[in-house]
Amino acid sequence: MSPFTRIARESVAALGEERLIALIRRWLGQVSPRTPFGIGDDCAVLPAAKGRQLITVDPVVYPRHFNDAVPARAVGAKLLKRNLSDLAAMGGRPTAAVLALTLDPRVSRRWLEGFYRGLAACARQYGVPIVGGDIAQSNGTVAASLTLLGACAGPRFVARTGARIGDTLWVTGRLGGSLPSRHHYTFTPRLAEGAWLARQAAVRAMMDLSDGLAKDVHALTPRGAAAAIDGSALPLRRGYDVRAALTDGEDYELVFALARGTDRDAFQRRWRRAFPRVPLRGIGRFTAKGKLPQGALDLTAFHGYEHLK
Amino acid sequence: MSPFTRIARESVAALGEERLIALIRRWLGQVSPRTPFGIGDDCAVLPAAKGRQLITVDPVVYPRHFNDAVPARAVGAKLLKRNLSDLAAMGGRPTAAVLALTLDPRVSRRWLEGFYRGLAACARQYGVPIVGGDIAQSNGTVAASLTLLGACAGPRFVARTGARIGDTLWVTGRLGGSLPSRHHYTFTPRLAEGAWLARQAAVRAMMDLSDGLAKDVHALTPRGAAAAIDGSALPLRRGYDVRAALTDGEDYELVFALARGTDRDAFQRRWRRAFPRVPLRGIGRFTAKGKLPQGALDLTAFHGYEHLK
Repeated sequence: MSPFTRIARESVAALGEERLIALIRRWLGQVSPRTPFGIGDDCAVLPAAKGRQLITVDPVVYPRHFNDAVPARAVGAKLLKRNLSDLAAMGGRPTAAVLALTLDPRVSRRWLEGFYRGLAACARQYGVPIVGGDIAQSNGTVAASLTLLGACAGPRFVARTGARIGDTLWVTGRLGGSLPSRHHYTFTPRLAEGAWLARQAAVRAMMDLSDGLAKDVHALTPRGAAAAIDGSALPLRRGYDVRAALTDGEDYELVFALARGTDRDAFQRRWRRAFPRVPLRGIGRFTAKGKLPQGALDLTAFHGYEHLK
Repeated sequence: MSPFTRIARESVAALGEERLIALIRRWLGQVSPRTPFGIGDDCAVLPAAKGRQLITVDPVVYPRHFNDAVPARAVGAKLLKRNLSDLAAMGGRPTAAVLALTLDPRVSRRWLEGFYRGLAACARQYGVPIVGGDIAQSNGTVAASLTLLGACAGPRFVARTGARIGDTLWVTGRLGGSLPSRHHYTFTPRLAEGAWLARQAAVRAMMDLSDGLAKDVHALTPRGAAAAIDGSALPLRRGYDVRAALTDGEDYELVFALARGTDRDAFQRRWRRAFPRVPLRGIGRFTAKGKLPQGALDLTAFHGYEHLK
């Protein structure tokens, strides 16, 4: 669905600010807490939080993260799910979110309603109150940025750093073809999986895949090490090849390092008991730099998504 | 300063993502905490917070909130100060911030450096760590949105609701002409003042002025009441009139309701001891609707800033 309308009276600009805010409250429904715990004051008040918090911010921008082929409701859901995926990657659970929109005045009321209703449905599903927001005008722009607050789901969070040489590399789900397969907005953020993995002491480092494995894996790779990935072990989405799995981006799957010496079969069995329908695949390991084993992929031949290019 | 460059090699796009992130860390300097407490992982980890938190989100968008006449450093500082003003309006103090940028690829590296250095200097001044961020591309856009977390500076926060008929209305600083006088980016957020006011039990409701007093005061006005404002009492910025004071917007001053029966002179004396250089002016009171006293301004004749028009 196109975010824009040519009919002035169907635009958000025609609504006026007061009516728009009233509609937003209605579209958000029960995920919009009452003032001062939600929209309507200078700040929103958050209940006291126990322990460390997690915070992340990620946008959806037209036409980079969605285009006219993506339903408006799916855009709203994607915005929250992208951020939930970041939280999942540290073993977190969500607690609250705020939303900043930058909109062309010709954005249609219908598109905006779909966006908010999709966001609200997803927020309801994951129990995320939308406590604040802002809408600014910018010609030619349809951009939404969500800041998500969370807490550790268990006793610890898992950072990107912490892997060591000899650790094995694992990935959830299937990779590649995210855009043509519509996975980039139909995906399920791996919150339960991330929380489970964070409870396994042998999981030393973890992240979510957004720019393609070939690029993202560098952030997990310890100093002086290289990622030896077995191309034949990559879990490919049906119809897509190794190059797609390495470079397409927007997989929103988890990749993590498992401590050397962990019983791989036992780990896999426990995973299958916890998540019988989510594939988990060992795809390689970290070796000393310059000592890539025969058959390992040369990742320098693959380029993931480059921002601002 | 214009955010854009026509020289491709001086654009942010020419930098590439990795170099840009390294530069951002350098520009932010000490306000960018180390991973995982700052930029560089899927989420940033926040230290445990005691008590209720406050959260707000506000943007600066080109050319609405800044234009080529505003120095890049001032744009970065304005972004943080707008959010600090929201926090001040509830009696809060800042604890952490995350930043989302939406940039045209032709934005110049020089402008972006100025923006970040201005933001960092302001963040240093107010003790606000910048713990996370995101940069997305959007043609024709220069927009930055900041989410600010805070805590109550004292034992309570002050909401917009809570005023009663008979309460008097007060405003800090001077109003009007924010754009031509450059006040819209040179202002000082009223953090200390907001914290002090929140400690006064007689302060029943408070907000900051962003869209002009004539519009904003409705949010403080209790049901069945009207704001009776004495035009001659309004603290005018030199060179600007009552209309400017009521409608120009971007004043970033505090307006609050003081409980009926409070000793006004004693309150003023205590204020002057605490803030000898910040004007404080009683500008009217809340009366029953339809019972505006003679001489009170008819606010319906004045319109504040309307968003998305």
